[in-house]
Formats: sequence, structure tokens, C-alpha cells
Amino acid sequence: MNVTHNENSITISHKGRTVFKHDSQNPAIFLGVGDAEYDMYRGNFKITDYVTERLPLRKCVVQEQAGSYLLTFSLDGEPTLEMSVVVTDRGRLKASFKALDARYNRFWIRVSATAEEKVYGCGEQLTYFNLRGKNFPLWSSEPGVGRNKNSYVTFLADTKDKAGGDYYNTNYPQPTFVSDKKYFCHLETTAYADFDFTNADFHELQCWNIPEYLLLDAEESFPALVENITDLFGRQPELPDWVLNGVILGIQGGTEITLNKLQAAKDAGVEVAGAWCQDWQGKKVTSFGKRLRWNWEWDSEMYPDLDKKIFELKEQGIRFLGYINPYVLEDHSLYKEAESQGFLATKKDGSKYVVDFGEFYCGVVDFTNPEACEWYKGVIKTNMIDFGLDGWMGDFGEYLPTDCTLSNGVSAEIEHNKWPYRWAKVQHEAIEEAGKTDDILFFMRAGGTGIQGYCHTLWGGDQLVDWCIDDGLASVIPAALSSGLMGNGIHHSDIGGYTTLHGCKRSKELFQRWAEMNAFTPIMRSHEGNRPDDNHQYDSDAETLAHLARMTKIFKHLKPYIKAASKENAEKGMPIQRPLFMHYEQDNEAYEIKFQYLFGRDLLVAPVYNQGEVEKEVYLPEDEWVHVWSGETYTGGWVTVDAPIGRPAVFYRKASKDAELLKGIASY
Amino acid sequence: MNVTHNENSITISHKGRTVFKHDSQNPAIFLGVGDAEYDMYRGNFKITDYVTERLPLRKCVVQEQAGSYLLTFSLDGEPTLEMSVVVTDRGRLKASFKALDARYNRFWIRVSATAEEKVYGCGEQLTYFNLRGKNFPLWSSEPGVGRNKNSYVTFLADTKDKAGGDYYNTNYPQPTFVSDKKYFCHLETTAYADFDFTNADFHELQCWNIPEYLLLDAEESFPALVENITDLFGRQPELPDWVLNGVILGIQGGTEITLNKLQAAKDAGVEVAGAWCQDWQGKKVTSFGKRLRWNWEWDSEMYPDLDKKIFELKEQGIRFLGYINPYVLEDHSLYKEAESQGFLATKKDGSKYVVDFGEFYCGVVDFTNPEACEWYKGVIKTNMIDFGLDGWMGDFGEYLPTDCTLSNGVSAEIEHNKWPYRWAKVQHEAIEEAGKTDDILFFMRAGGTGIQGYCHTLWGGDQLVDWCIDDGLASVIPAALSSGLMGNGIHHSDIGGYTTLHGCKRSKELFQRWAEMNAFTPIMRSHEGNRPDDNHQYDSDAETLAHLARMTKIFKHLKPYIKAASKENAEKGMPIQRPLFMHYEQDNEAYEIKFQYLFGRDLLVAPVYNQGEVEKEVYLPEDEWVHVWSGETYTGGWVTVDAPIGRPAVFYRKASKDAELLKGIASY
Repeated sequence: MNVTHNENSITISHKGRTVFKHDSQNPAIFLGVGDAEYDMYRGNFKITDYVTERLPLRKCVVQEQAGSYLLTFSLDGEPTLEMSVVVTDRGRLKASFKALDARYNRFWIRVSATAEEKVYGCGEQLTYFNLRGKNFPLWSSEPGVGRNKNSYVTFLADTKDKAGGDYYNTNYPQPTFVSDKKYFCHLETTAYADFDFTNADFHELQCWNIPEYLLLDAEESFPALVENITDLFGRQPELPDWVLNGVILGIQGGTEITLNKLQAAKDAGVEVAGAWCQDWQGKKVTSFGKRLRWNWEWDSEMYPDLDKKIFELKEQGIRFLGYINPYVLEDHSLYKEAESQGFLATKKDGSKYVVDFGEFYCGVVDFTNPEACEWYKGVIKTNMIDFGLDGWMGDFGEYLPTDCTLSNGVSAEIEHNKWPYRWAKVQHEAIEEAGKTDDILFFMRAGGTGIQGYCHTLWGGDQLVDWCIDDGLASVIPAALSSGLMGNGIHHSDIGGYTTLHGCKRSKELFQRWAEMNAFTPIMRSHEGNRPDDNHQYDSDAETLAHLARMTKIFKHLKPYIKAASKENAEKGMPIQRPLFMHYEQDNEAYEIKFQYLFGRDLLVAPVYNQGEVEKEVYLPEDEWVHVWSGETYTGGWVTVDAPIGRPAVFYRKASKDAELLKGIASY
Repeated sequence: MNVTHNENSITISHKGRTVFKHDSQNPAIFLGVGDAEYDMYRGNFKITDYVTERLPLRKCVVQEQAGSYLLTFSLDGEPTLEMSVVVTDRGRLKASFKALDARYNRFWIRVSATAEEKVYGCGEQLTYFNLRGKNFPLWSSEPGVGRNKNSYVTFLADTKDKAGGDYYNTNYPQPTFVSDKKYFCHLETTAYADFDFTNADFHELQCWNIPEYLLLDAEESFPALVENITDLFGRQPELPDWVLNGVILGIQGGTEITLNKLQAAKDAGVEVAGAWCQDWQGKKVTSFGKRLRWNWEWDSEMYPDLDKKIFELKEQGIRFLGYINPYVLEDHSLYKEAESQGFLATKKDGSKYVVDFGEFYCGVVDFTNPEACEWYKGVIKTNMIDFGLDGWMGDFGEYLPTDCTLSNGVSAEIEHNKWPYRWAKVQHEAIEEAGKTDDILFFMRAGGTGIQGYCHTLWGGDQLVDWCIDDGLASVIPAALSSGLMGNGIHHSDIGGYTTLHGCKRSKELFQRWAEMNAFTPIMRSHEGNRPDDNHQYDSDAETLAHLARMTKIFKHLKPYIKAASKENAEKGMPIQRPLFMHYEQDNEAYEIKFQYLFGRDLLVAPVYNQGEVEKEVYLPEDEWVHVWSGETYTGGWVTVDAPIGRPAVFYRKASKDAELLKGIASY
């Protein structure tokens, strides 16, 4: 840390980066007062803020105390905010904040920037990868349908369901960014935040409380930086070995259908790692499509004999996965149990509070109550793990209403963004307590600061069964890259997408392109979508099935390679899907590539994300790259390769120690 | 004025209304700093503001000086703003502002309110009449196509042309409102403003400079209030007598077509007051439709012999009207003339600045230059009045770009909202100097503070040829009522609407309903729309023509009644179209009726504005009302009457001194 200051002016730099510049003409911190309205409709929020005050803290008195600095900011002589700056034992710059006047509930801080700087992260971002030039409201919510106000599907979703979303909507926001200057910056708050990267000289970070602290550290390389970040936020465990044996097929409809479909898939040569039956606890039909019965126990009518079949399948090498989320369906057994013990969030007056999930209503398990957590862990252990489930989708986490009351007394506005973390922790601990951390797969879409250490894997959320850039196949690539830089190294997506609404129906081509991409992600898993009958499915025809079979063979072929990457992720936080600049930091172009990625160190993947495209323009950073299908070697720059269905644009590094294995992809 | 104050607390009331309440905990004035971006695309603005400071001026020192008060506000002891409060000779409360620190460019003031209070005005508002519960950005612009983000046509207009607009978009904003507590409040500024009526205890008025003053006055009745308002802003002259002789037919295409159409209309029994040929100066074809050649002189090729025919028509009792706006088409004669004399707005460096009007580009005549005004008045007098035109559409006025440079040195951001006023003044003075104030009709859509004294009549702008509430037939009713309360007592609209885009085509039914309504407005005028071939026209079939003929006969029959109302408007600012509460202030329901109006004192008009409707539910304030068609008398409340095409829901007051005349409507 280097600090220079004189009267009313201070500059702080850390490891050679200027971090903070303040003087009375250009104050770096503002406090204010705002009155927000949160209008939630089924996980979609309309949030408005009436900011009545925004005060520049122009005056700053600096006191040095044995290597740390106490900055006292004021507006009019009356001290208003203390900022205490230290370098932590780990070598990070930490600036802690203390408001001296409790009336302020809005906070802005300007982190120094340069005009050409690029920034990434902010959780899982699906539209932008380099975030510079936009602001990013950070509030966990439904990700939006279409996510682009210029798209017709977004218009329909907005007008029918308030659900269209915009470029910044995400299940997983995090007030942390990574700069191409090889530093990360984290603001410790779970309040609503908005990171504004539109200014040339600074990044303005806003949050709706006084944050605990700002943490910043720089490294000499990006790999060192993600190691540092995951040292802070936690690291995911290694993927269970069985996940890499093939695809996890999303199947619904009961035991017989599941067994028949598994047999048919195997007969067609599909490598199957598991069956994921999200309706294992039964169904409920609504106008959105078939919805699940959110009372987390085996539905023995819909899945007769599953208690036995689940173990028979396991012996055949096929795992059975289910589904859970942090809500319990009104009037069902778990709801009643939770309610009777006071384990549900309530209204202010202690009365019943249920959340509308679209024609059905649920209680919110109050994870701020340790007993409620224990109880829910018990549900997971008894009803799911002991029953034989080897994994599940740990859905939702974004719907904590801001006007409910929680047992820890903290405002739900502040708890809202923390809920995914709490939800991940409950699941992780249930698994850990069952001694199954290395064998159970669970995947979440919601996230926030700290899920890295608890949420084992992410999936990209509910993409449209569509080609649209902001909410289709393409969007999961920046999603994987941004969340990977935050320390979530294992990411995947529903093969073929999920949301089947407003006329969108999954085509065969889309399914195939998505399957091809997902063979080069850490997990292959299919989903029927919310309206399965409208969608092309993996088994809709023999050609699709054969194509999938081949992709699962490639995936299984890559098992040792992915397994090693998963180990590296567990040990050093190195994401399995990586931006090109992770290993090619000298390459300027690499910083703007958002629809390609490195898969492990030595594979470069450029998914076809446009309908009808059979050639692919690919950017290769300077290296020796072998196109897996033609065997042709390229040395860098933009190249065009044939990429018909079945031959996704994939390259391996000639110098890879796994070159033989990677070359083998072409044998399928 | 009544002022009570002690340390840091002051309350000001005027004529029994509490106007201003301030104390250190609830400051009434805020100053701030903002950095706005104005992105204009063809008159549609995307405006964003980055407010870096908003400071509550908590401290207030009051000095009394012979009946006036000087309030000195400060944030931190350093005086920041002076507010000098006096009662003017006219008895109005006037609070003048003086910033003591030039750095502030954002201003907020809270005017005291009560929770149940209703407010109106803010210029010409097309979606809301009672403005309470919303905020109203006040910036002159295109009014928007559809004007409702939930409508598909708005979506199309937004995505194709950035033109969809929203509830507040208007050609004519004015920072003035009228309260149901019978006071008006005006903020003297032409900067961007935003009046926020969402708070229970106050109205928060924002503007993007330090306003000169706030002016407020109350009266015992609404008629006295509009008299007061128009005493302030000016009053329109009486309508030319000939306007009340019949319809002004919107015709295009040349002399022969015009003469033929006029003859055919007369043959069909249509009472014709004039022909309005907006293409008298020739045309230009673009993808939007046929656009006019903006070089304001007779096109003798398109309109051969018009120089003679115009006087022949006048002898037959038919006036000829043209078109002009404040822009001159690049590379044409007027442009060259203006440019050579320095009469056009320029870029900052003095170089050429043209505005994109949709595939053609124009210079902006610089009305801040008195010589440019004189020159443009000369163009109007010579090319239009002397040529024989008896009226015109004085189009536009909203497109002053914020980044152009003007001769008076004032920022175009500040001049933008003043431009319609300047444009009205140029036209008025040209007419006045020609001695034709009582004989020439010109109509504008743009407006702002002070146009009342210069713009003789308004038309409602470019409605969709459609039934939609926010931009169709219905929308011109609140437009007439709101602008009427601001002192613009003569309002009308294009019969059948104008904007023919995105699949909207004018139907026969819409045309007929609109014609029926406009027979009960001060001016009847038809428009072919921007794509005439897509629209049903007044002469598309014999039935339409006969229907129009009958409506023009009714209109002409009402001539003495309308003429008297026009006189009252000229003398006392009493609008011809009036909200029901104007004369029924005890009637609570009357304050929320936005799609009915009083036409003069004694007619109540409830236009059918829904497709297919043949019965009309009408609200009648307590009085004796005679339904013109059935002769049935009603005494008040909600009633339902038959309203087939040809029998619009119109009632006259039984006690009217014009009862015989009004009864005569039924004879047509």
C-alpha cells in the first residue's frame, strides 16, 4: 500500500495500481438517503429508488497509525464516515467503513480507473462479459425472458408476466469485479448494489447500506488472481467421478418412462451418467406448464418402486437425481411441519406469508433461523440422500420478498441477496454431514458472495429454447466465464434451453448445437423444458439420439482431462471454462472475446450459436492450435473453419501434454 | 400571504392555502449537480441524468422586510440560496430564487400538498388528466407513437424508430399546474423539468437550472382561476369568423385535385370553410410517407394557377390554408438565404448544423437572433400572407437539438423548451404586422410557457389512426382539457388522426366517430394522414361524406354559440372545451372525468372512443341535461344513452340561454 496525502487530498495505491483518489473537488465517497420500492412479481422485480439526498464527502482528514490509515470524511465539518485502510495478512487492501450518522442508507464509492480498462464479473452476467460502458444493478432475481427490450419475446414476457428482464438481470449477482489490470475489487454488502462502469476515470460502486468493507488485491497473473479470489470466497469441491461418465438425462413422468428412456438411450449408444427426474416428488399443472409439487419427498404413486429401482440403477452405473428448492408448498406436509415450528418467514405481525410462484403459493424456509436450517438439512438427508438420490437441482433462491420478516431480525432487503448463499450452505452441509461431498452433484442457478465454498456447481438458469443472443445458447458462454472469474469454476447449462413460451419452441438444430457445446463443459445434462411437448427432445428422432450418443462419447473420452481440470479448480479456483485472456494476457483481442472459451488449459471451443451457420469464424490467440476435425494447425488470429452439425469448432493446443487424448476427439 | 417562522422552520400560506413548509428535518428545497445526456433521434429524446449531488438545504434564516421575506438557505452554514417572497400587485405569491454558488444546476422544491389533492395541467397532457400519482418529465418532444410501453405499436415504434414514447411525452410541456384546491403554481424555467406528484404531503418540482421564480395564486372559482392564469400567460385572440362556417378539408395533390374535391364536397352538402393543402410548397417522398418540401414558397408546378384560384375560392367563401415550420430544407433557396446571413443555428465551432427529420435534413432558424425572426416573419408575410393564404399549420418546434449554438449565447438545453414559444411569437407577429389577427388561422402542436398570448390555436398533434387510449381518439380529450386549463382555450385535432404506421390504418368507423367529436370542438379539420392511401378518407364513400356533411351542418349551426365562447376565451381565458369541474366544483366525480367535456357552458359531450360501441355511459353533474337526440332530460349521475354513429352522446343544459339553438342540433 502506498498512501500520499495532504490537506483534503489523498491517493491510495496497492501493488502498483492506483485504487482511490480523493480531493475536495473530486470527492470519492458520497453518502445519501433513498427510499426504495421493490415490486416483486414472481421473482421479477421492479425496483425504484427515490434518492432525496446525495452528499459529496469533500473533506477528508487522514490519520496514520502504524501502517494503517484512518480517513475521516465529512461534508460540513461534522465527521460523517470513517474509512479504515489496512493491508491484511494475506496482503489484500481492506478499507472498512463506519458511518458516524445512522441516517444514511445510500453509499457510493469511486474506485480509480483508466479509460481503456476492462472489467468482468459481477457474479454471473449473461449479456455482457466486459462490463465497461454499462451499469449493473446487482439484485438476485429471475433472469428475464429474452432479456432485451428490443426483442419481441421480451415485450411479450414483459406485458404478460412482467418477466422480460434486461441485460443485467441475473440469478447470481455479486458485488465483485475483476479488472484486466489483474486486480479484483469486492464490496462487502448484501444490500441492493449497482456497479457503474460508464465513467472514464472511476468505477462508481453504489449500495443501499453502509458496506462493511471494500477489499482489493492484485496479482501478477490471472491464474494467481483467481486463486486469490477463491482463497477469499471459497472453492468448489471436485466433481463426483460418475458425472464424467456421460450425460445426465432430464426425464419426467414416472418410473416406467424413466427406465424405458434410459434403456433406449443406452441401446442407441448414449453414455448415460444419470437420470434427472425433477418430478420425483410429483407434479402440479399450471398454465405455465407442468410444475413440480414442492413438498420434498418421493411420490410413490408417480414413481412406484423407485426406492428399489434407484439402487438397481446405481449398480448399472446410472445415478438418479431429483429436485428441491427452498420453498414449501402451502397446505402440504413440510409446510405444516415448518409452520408449526416457526421455521417460515412471516409478515411483520407474525402472520402467514406465502410467495406467489405462478398459480401456487409457498412458504419461505427461514434460513436465518439455525433450527430451520437444521430441519431443512434433515429433510434433504432423510428424504433425498438416504432415499438414494445422488444429486439434484437446487433451484431458486432469488424470491425472498423484501417485506417479509425473518428470525434474525435483519431486514429482508439486506437478506435478499444473501439468500442464495444461505441456500447453498444448507445443501452443502447436508451433503457434507452425510459424508457425500465427493459423490453427490447439486447445481444451482442463484448465487451471491460466498457461494463459491458451498454451491458445488452452477447451471446457467432458464435460457429460452431459442437462438437469441441475450437469452439463448450464446448467453451461457459469458455466464460461464463471468461466474468462473468469481470462483465458480464449474458451470453448465440445460442442453437445449428451458423456457418454452411466447411461441418459442426448441428446434432440432438448436438441441444439437447445444449438445455439442455442452460436451465441452464440465457437465452434460438435458432438460425437457417447461413445455416438453413443444420442444425437440434428445430422443425425438434417431438422428438426434445418435448425435447425442456421439457427443457423450466425446465427453466421456475427455474424462481424465476434465477430471484434472476439476481438481485444479478445487485446489486453486481455476475455472474449467476460461476466458482466452486467462492464459494469453498479452493478447488484446482476447479481452473482448465473449462467445469462445478455453475448456481447461488446452482446448479452445467456439460454439456455433447462430441458426443455420455451418462455418465458424474463430479467434485464436497466438499459439499452435490444431483443429480437432481436420487436424489442420493454426497459429493465431481470426480463422474460419467448417462447423457443420456434429463438428463443433474445437481446437487443441499442439503443445498440450494431453495432445494425444485431445487428438482422439476426432475418432468419434 | 401568511408567514410563520422560528429558528429553522417556516410555513408560508397564501389565500388560505399552505404553500410551503420547511424545517431542518423536512427541508423543502434541495440543490444539486447533475450531468445530463440528451440523445435525440428525430424529435424523440432519450434523456438520462447522472446526479452526483443532491443537497438538502436544511438551514433557513428568515428576514422580514416590509411585508416581503428573504429566506436564506444553507446546507452547512455557508449561505447557498436566497428565496425572496413577495405578494405581487396582482396579489400573486412570488418566490424568486438566487443561487449564491454557481456550481448547482439541479433544483428541487416541495410545494405543500394534501393526500387527496388532485392536480392538472403541465401543458398538454394526453394520457393523464389528474396528474396525481405520477411524475411528469417536462420536455418538448415528439409525443410518441402508441405512448404505452405495454402496447405492441409502441414496441414497434420504439424498436424501429425510437419513437414509441410514454405517458408523459408531449409536444407541449409547461411547468405549471392547477390544483383542485383552486390554485395554480408555475415555476419559471425553460430548462428540463420534472414535476413529481407521487408524494402525499408535497409536490416536488424539479428543474435543471436555478429557476427564476415560483408563482402561485388562488381564486374562489375555477373561472376566476383561468382568468388569472391567462392574465399571466396571455390570451388567444378570437377565432376568425370564417372558421366557424364549416370544415377545413385536408387535401393534397395540386390545384386540380383540390378544386375537384372541394366541388364534390359542396355537392354532397358539406359545409366547407377552407381547404388545407399542406403540400402547397411541394413534396418529397420518404419511407415514412410523402413528406413536404420545407422551402416555404408556392410550388407553381404542383399548384398551377393557385395565385389566382386562391382568391376565387375566397370569393366563394372558401379559404386556402398552407403549412410551415421553423426549419428550412438543406440546399434549397430559403436555407441558402438564411445560411448566408447567419440566421441558422450552428455547431459550437460555427460550422453547419442540420437536423435529421427522417431521411432529409434541415437548418434550424435561430429565433434568438432578432434579425432572423424579422427575416422569417418576412417569409411568412411575403410568401404566405401576401400570396393569399388565410391560415396554416405551424408545425414542429420541438426539435431544437441541445448541442447546437445560438446567437444569444444561451445554452440550447435552456432554449429547447422555449422554442415553441419563440416559434409562436414569430408567426403571431407576422400576422399582426399584416393586420390579419382576426382573419388568419394558424395552429400549432408544440407549446410552452407563454404561447397562450401568441399561438392562436392548438391541435392535438399526431394521433394514431386508431382507438388506443393513449394515442388515439380518446387522448385528445385530456389534451384539450389540460391545455385549456393552462390558458389555451382553443384546441382541436386531426379528424381521423394522423400517424399511419406499423399496420395501423384508419377505419371508416374511426373517421366517423372522430368527425362527430370534432363537430363539438372549436375547429373542424380533416387530415389524410401520413399514408393517405392506407386510410379511410372523408370522401372514401358516399355514406362517410354524407355523415361529414351532417356534422359540418351541426357545427355551422353552433356558430353563434362557439363564437360567443371564443369571445369569452379571448376576454377571460375561459377554454371552450372545459372539464366538468369548471362549472360543477362541488361534484367530486367531476374531477376524475377525463373523456368527457363541457363544450362552452351549456353542452356536455361524451365522445364514443371505443370501437364498436353504440351505447354510451355518461356522467352528468347535477343539473338538468337534455339529451339532444332523444330530448330526454336527465338530472345527474351516470346514465346510459344510445350513441350509434351519427348520434354522439351530447347533452345541453335545459336552463341555457341558448337552449333553443342547442335543441336545434337534433334537426340535422
